Amino acid sequence: MRGGGVYIVGTGPGDPDLLTVKALRLLQKAEVVVFDRLVSPEILDLVPTGTTRIYAGKGPKHHHMQQAQINELLASLVHRGCTVVRVKGGDPYIFGRGSEETEYLARHNIPFEVVPGITAASGSSAYAGIPLTHRGLATSVRYLTGHLRDGLELDHDWQSLTDLNTTLVIYMGLTNFEHIASELITHGLDSGMPAAAIQNATTFRQRRVLGTLSNLAVRVREAGLSAPVIFIVGRVVSLANVLHWFRTDVAIAQEGQAVADAE
Amino acid sequence: MRGGGVYIVGTGPGDPDLLTVKALRLLQKAEVVVFDRLVSPEILDLVPTGTTRIYAGKGPKHHHMQQAQINELLASLVHRGCTVVRVKGGDPYIFGRGSEETEYLARHNIPFEVVPGITAASGSSAYAGIPLTHRGLATSVRYLTGHLRDGLELDHDWQSLTDLNTTLVIYMGLTNFEHIASELITHGLDSGMPAAAIQNATTFRQRRVLGTLSNLAVRVREAGLSAPVIFIVGRVVSLANVLHWFRTDVAIAQEGQAVADAE
Repeated sequence: MRGGGVYIVGTGPGDPDLLTVKALRLLQKAEVVVFDRLVSPEILDLVPTGTTRIYAGKGPKHHHMQQAQINELLASLVHRGCTVVRVKGGDPYIFGRGSEETEYLARHNIPFEVVPGITAASGSSAYAGIPLTHRGLATSVRYLTGHLRDGLELDHDWQSLTDLNTTLVIYMGLTNFEHIASELITHGLDSGMPAAAIQNATTFRQRRVLGTLSNLAVRVREAGLSAPVIFIVGRVVSLANVLHWFRTDVAIAQEGQAVADAE
Repeated sequence: MRGGGVYIVGTGPGDPDLLTVKALRLLQKAEVVVFDRLVSPEILDLVPTGTTRIYAGKGPKHHHMQQAQINELLASLVHRGCTVVRVKGGDPYIFGRGSEETEYLARHNIPFEVVPGITAASGSSAYAGIPLTHRGLATSVRYLTGHLRDGLELDHDWQSLTDLNTTLVIYMGLTNFEHIASELITHGLDSGMPAAAIQNATTFRQRRVLGTLSNLAVRVREAGLSAPVIFIVGRVVSLANVLHWFRTDVAIAQEGQAVADAE
């Protein structure tokens, strides 16, 4: 962008191989990279050594910068003539707050572009063996947040979440999953509905815990999963053992194999 | 994969720049590529000239091969020792029928891997300026099909689709959008709810039509949109004019600029 501007770039769920071609090129040519806590270390390793990096960490409990400060930071960098690559985990427009940044930029006449990324739901789906739609099991999929900012209580329309034909994917749900599962059961979803939790999806640190709506929260606690974790609830989870191909315990060996095969 | 296997690869919404790094590498090194009608010509151009290409076209009305035939084709190629790159538009596990293929492969002990892709919802969102979630406007997003195969009638739980805080994205909805909009209004969604249709999202052929739940079907017909079209319904569509950065009428000039800037 001539005269500066901001690329708002989704970097996907974690595996650097799941960056888009455009995101990779922007990372490698950036003047300044402004990044989040949710961008994986493997991806930050792709940023050349000389590039200016600014941490604008955001996590459920650790707001290194407030959103308003981030917006102002981006604007001030552009006013100095920089082209900024603002990277985010997943997709900027799915629970990424990317549109709070682009709205600010647009209202201040600052040029921007948005690069979509593989969202955690899609990465988890592929790498945990759980399709989000499947003939006869799901004609719809719904992503929802399991965490509201500013201490607000979750006020989902629970009744609307109990459609058997819809796969549910819960982002940022680690703290509240037990409550969410209980609301879903209260509003009519079968307590035996298959459910899965996936931590660090798509990376060699991926962990997957399977269960049902009624026992998954306990299993996740027993397994000691920690954020980022995504939950998938619905009949499609019944395919998880059939379609499981990504086994992290042999992942490094597999990767060596994949490289050898590709050559 | 030693001894053959199948990569089920999502190629994203159309722009080759939105391929993942992994998908691009697999396309460039493939022995055999089996592709769909929904894979964009720009992406097929990335497959080297000597690579065997097999068209397994699928579209709403044009079933070049039945799913069972495609499954058998993939298996027979692997039994001949091939490593097959099976490419699909968007994401294989979101309305891509990828899991019908992996289920078949798994049950026949054929090795496979799944590479997620940017789904059309996410590509359209970024390139049409419509975030799928946004603070104060949407805490949830739902993808649903607007078309059921085998002549089945759409039987969505309409009541569950009228949650104000949920963005709706309708895939394959061109034929049925008028019916869908009418059901949504009947079940309580405001007829003035902002709605958008995006054709050929993320490519230089992208077209975007904005309206409301009550008038969008007519506007889409007047504009003469043709498949593939995706629909987005919800309060987030009210941001579409503020966040619109990808203007296809100047797209080629912009692309030249972007290349110059990147260098």
